[in-house]
Amino acid sequence: MYVIIDLCVVPLGVGVSVSPYVAACQRVIEDAGLEHRMHAYGTNIEGSWDEVLAVVKRCHEAVHAMGAPRITTTLKLGTRTDREQHMDDKLESVETLLRDSDAGKV
Amino acid sequence: MYVIIDLCVVPLGVGVSVSPYVAACQRVIEDAGLEHRMHAYGTNIEGSWDEVLAVVKRCHEAVHAMGAPRITTTLKLGTRTDREQHMDDKLESVETLLRDSDAGKV
Amino acid sequence: MYVIIDLCVVPLGVGVSVSPYVAACQRVIEDAGLEHRMHAYGTNIEGSWDEVLAVVKRCHEAVHAMGAPRITTTLKLGTRTDREQHMDDKLESVETLLRDSDAGKV
Amino acid sequence: MYVIIDLCVVPLGVGVSVSPYVAACQRVIEDAGLEHRMHAYGTNIEGSWDEVLAVVKRCHEAVHAMGAPRITTTLKLGTRTDREQHMDDKLESVETLLRDSDAGKV
Repeated sequence: MYVIIDLCVVPLGVGVSVSPYVAACQRVIEDAGLEHRMHAYGTNIEGSWDEVLAVVKRCHEAVHAMGAPRITTTLKLGTRTDREQHMDDKLESVETLLRDSDAGKV
Repeated sequence: MYVIIDLCVVPLGVGVSVSPYVAACQRVIEDAGLEHRMHAYGTNIEGSWDEVLAVVKRCHEAVHAMGAPRITTTLKLGTRTDREQHMDDKLESVETLLRDSDAGKV
Repeated sequence: MYVIIDLCVVPLGVGVSVSPYVAACQRVIEDAGLEHRMHAYGTNIEGSWDEVLAVVKRCHEAVHAMGAPRITTTLKLGTRTDREQHMDDKLESVETLLRDSDAGKV
Repeated sequence: MYVIIDLCVVPLGVGVSVSPYVAACQRVIEDAGLEHRMHAYGTNIEGSWDEVLAVVKRCHEAVHAMGAPRITTTLKLGTRTDREQHMDDKLESVETLLRDSDAGKV
């Protein structure tokens, strides 16, 4: 089962600056070799369910190891059986519609 | 690593009535023997990370097996290393504060 | 437009104990007189869009006023135009399916 | 109150292809003139609380007007009182940490 997720890890009890913890998660994601893209409120990652969810667990482990006593994470998980789809496909289908509509095609 | 999650599985491409799919997920959760409580917009589940996340995967598998071609799930995941905490503890600490405040203690 | 939401307000920069802030939000919700129910990872609230979203804003204002310098909130919002639906209806339709299935009716 | 949100609108009862509805939301966001950036699992938007939340409401109205009988939206909302922060600042603080760490500075 292939999955596209959106991951947002929030450490609690470490003050207001969470970027070092987010950076640590980016390292974990990069080390896993999975396709990913960070945005201002999370990171999109795609791959096999087990690999992707293992990365989420390692992020929690890494953030706790850095000293965060508590973590609350928000995760979106998308799976489909009708066809293969990647992060770029999702963006492209919306962007194509917007372009065609601008061009008067829709 | 112990985790408390809030799980909301949304099948797409099956019309507006999603309750049969939610009921199927409830079965999966019950069969796993994990502590859980359903609310109007999801289900709280607690247990070891691996057991709980295995349940989330089985929910996706069950909902796809029922014919849903696409699923988008929202998940919150809470872990802590400073102390043990269960779902009831979270509710109780808030409810105690509200009661004490009503009684003029806070 | 009627909406059922699930609200989870997380204050950052105030340590690991967030229950006083959650309790303050409960007060805000109660004062608004909206139907609501707290669970271990958030609170379900229902009502007109404008009233419910005004409550979410007042929660942020109240939590900042208590001294939290940063807040990250997760919100789910459900609206429908095909029929009226309340929080209890959502729970009941799933619970009925589970009961009927236990009784061998499904 | 300034807010950075992450918005993911999911129409139900319209089949598996949700891109036309997402494109309609992009139009609503663009028409509002707010800073925004789409990713594969939602759209980051920033601005004043009232303007941003008005856009979320208009997205629900637009998607219902296109014929979707039911919508479930996931929203993250970040506010802070300690300092001004924009979407790009959030990304940049993480990317700077990653670069410095690559360069052996951290």
